[in-house]
Amino acid sequence: MLDVKLFPHFKTHQSIEIGEWFSALGIQAITVSSLKMAEYFANNGWRDITVAFPVNVLEIERINRIIDLGVDLTLLIVAPDVVSKLDDQIVGRAKILIEMDAGYNRTGVPVEEIDMIKAIVSNINSAENLGFYGLYCHPGNTYHASSVEKIKSIWADVKSKLVGVKAKLIEINPTLKLRMGDTPGCTVVEDMNGIDEIGPGNFVFNDLVMNYLGVCAEDQIAVAMACPVVAKNKERNEIVIHGGAVHFSKDHLFDSDENKFFGEVVILNENGWSPIIEGIKLVALSQEHGIMSVNSEIFNSIEVGDVIGVLPIHSCLTANLMKSYLTLDGKWINHLEKEF
Amino acid sequence: MLDVKLFPHFKTHQSIEIGEWFSALGIQAITVSSLKMAEYFANNGWRDITVAFPVNVLEIERINRIIDLGVDLTLLIVAPDVVSKLDDQIVGRAKILIEMDAGYNRTGVPVEEIDMIKAIVSNINSAENLGFYGLYCHPGNTYHASSVEKIKSIWADVKSKLVGVKAKLIEINPTLKLRMGDTPGCTVVEDMNGIDEIGPGNFVFNDLVMNYLGVCAEDQIAVAMACPVVAKNKERNEIVIHGGAVHFSKDHLFDSDENKFFGEVVILNENGWSPIIEGIKLVALSQEHGIMSVNSEIFNSIEVGDVIGVLPIHSCLTANLMKSYLTLDGKWINHLEKEF
Repeated sequence: MLDVKLFPHFKTHQSIEIGEWFSALGIQAITVSSLKMAEYFANNGWRDITVAFPVNVLEIERINRIIDLGVDLTLLIVAPDVVSKLDDQIVGRAKILIEMDAGYNRTGVPVEEIDMIKAIVSNINSAENLGFYGLYCHPGNTYHASSVEKIKSIWADVKSKLVGVKAKLIEINPTLKLRMGDTPGCTVVEDMNGIDEIGPGNFVFNDLVMNYLGVCAEDQIAVAMACPVVAKNKERNEIVIHGGAVHFSKDHLFDSDENKFFGEVVILNENGWSPIIEGIKLVALSQEHGIMSVNSEIFNSIEVGDVIGVLPIHSCLTANLMKSYLTLDGKWINHLEKEF
Repeated sequence: MLDVKLFPHFKTHQSIEIGEWFSALGIQAITVSSLKMAEYFANNGWRDITVAFPVNVLEIERINRIIDLGVDLTLLIVAPDVVSKLDDQIVGRAKILIEMDAGYNRTGVPVEEIDMIKAIVSNINSAENLGFYGLYCHPGNTYHASSVEKIKSIWADVKSKLVGVKAKLIEINPTLKLRMGDTPGCTVVEDMNGIDEIGPGNFVFNDLVMNYLGVCAEDQIAVAMACPVVAKNKERNEIVIHGGAVHFSKDHLFDSDENKFFGEVVILNENGWSPIIEGIKLVALSQEHGIMSVNSEIFNSIEVGDVIGVLPIHSCLTANLMKSYLTLDGKWINHLEKEF
């Protein structure tokens, strides 16, 4: 029993319908990565939303529209001077998480900068419309860990740094919460003592990154792309699919020989798909074309006109490009569309 | 005077409205990279469309819908056995280009395989509903050339190979056309003698790839992304923008020190944007975040809440993700939406 509250990150699926699966399991509070996504879910009934991206006051109209819908909105702040700008323009109330950087070096106030953290807390406490909620940290360096043990040790280190910051703020804010979000850590860590809340996202589908990290088994990857075979080249032992950078994005991994690849291949069947096929990999992408390198046995078993499955490197980006899902029982599921 | 017919490739902009700019200049025939895109433009009045992607007979319904609209449709074929499958299922007529591979090694029949090419031509000539139109080649290796001279020499080589294939087919098909498509070559090559038609696309916007190749000047890049600054880190001299992999894709270039980067930075102004700013580059992307490495002088001149411009590495992929454009005079222009 980990005793943490889950705020699942909906940036991975970006789908109202998949959101309802979470709702059916009792989830009421969610995380998103943009205000656009927050508005999408707010318009579909979600009433407790954290936007896990440093707040941009230029988007104040959207912030106010979301609050106006009755949403309990939690925003991230990473610098003291943003607090008053936000407070001046917000209509209604928002809760604030201060984003911490505990070594990932993307965004957030470095955990060592206690004075700056205290300045932000003090500004929030002086603000009319903002309430200090706690500290948030995305320890994204777990995505680059070399083993599950390493993921656990990164998580333990980040956790102890956050607990340390909390100790220094506890007098001014005894109720502050600590939240961490990242699928690798949230999946494998067994001791979350001291952390109150988590906000992972990718776990809903998993992908080859998670599989290569040892965080999920191959059969726990829940999405595959169906790609038609459009050409073959016998001399190069290559199969060409309709599946390129506009479908997969360009994230990649390296195999054991340090060769870059963009997806693993499975055989689609009635119940889903086969284990990963050895001897074939998606090795190059242009806008619409995907090139697969295959051994000659597999080359001969695949024909132009076949549809083969590809497990994505990064399911969030692939889902973001494809914009919808087909379930195994034949139902189409929607994904947030781009809108401006 | 190059004396070739231009079939501009609309996969770069994917926009009805930008298509109308071409139409106003007298263009009536276009290229696209998918049947979905063909249908989008067909539904908006275009009546001569080449789908420059190996035909996938599984999409026969869409092919037939497009022909049914009265479109003069040209399809690419890369193998003999696809001809009869297409011929059997097509309702109406289509013209066929055989895609040639002259060294790029993506798709197409290798130019050396004269027997296979003749077999395809023969199958087309026996088909009831298909007409042999000519040979198509995308010499995409020009995108990896080290100089403009190298681009010209790749083009000359490919051209002579195509002319060679044509000579061997001329008895059975005296009217066949030769078409080549690629922005680098089509922009710099001065001698196209022997080639009848060209189908480049990227030139409508250009991008940093074209600029780094020496194919376009910096001020010929016609798209920039406006990105809000959401955080700064003084210790690392980093600026964080809202602009990540879901906006730019993950294409990158390497600077002169072999450092990977994802975009160059410009200052947006009333008339467009400044030249590229030295001392700042977009060096890392996650789903929504972009990290810019900057020198300290520039660091101090940029504030959270500013909006800065980023020139994309690959304009086709960036446009495909953003799904709309804002012109310098404040007008929104649409882009094909994903639909299934």
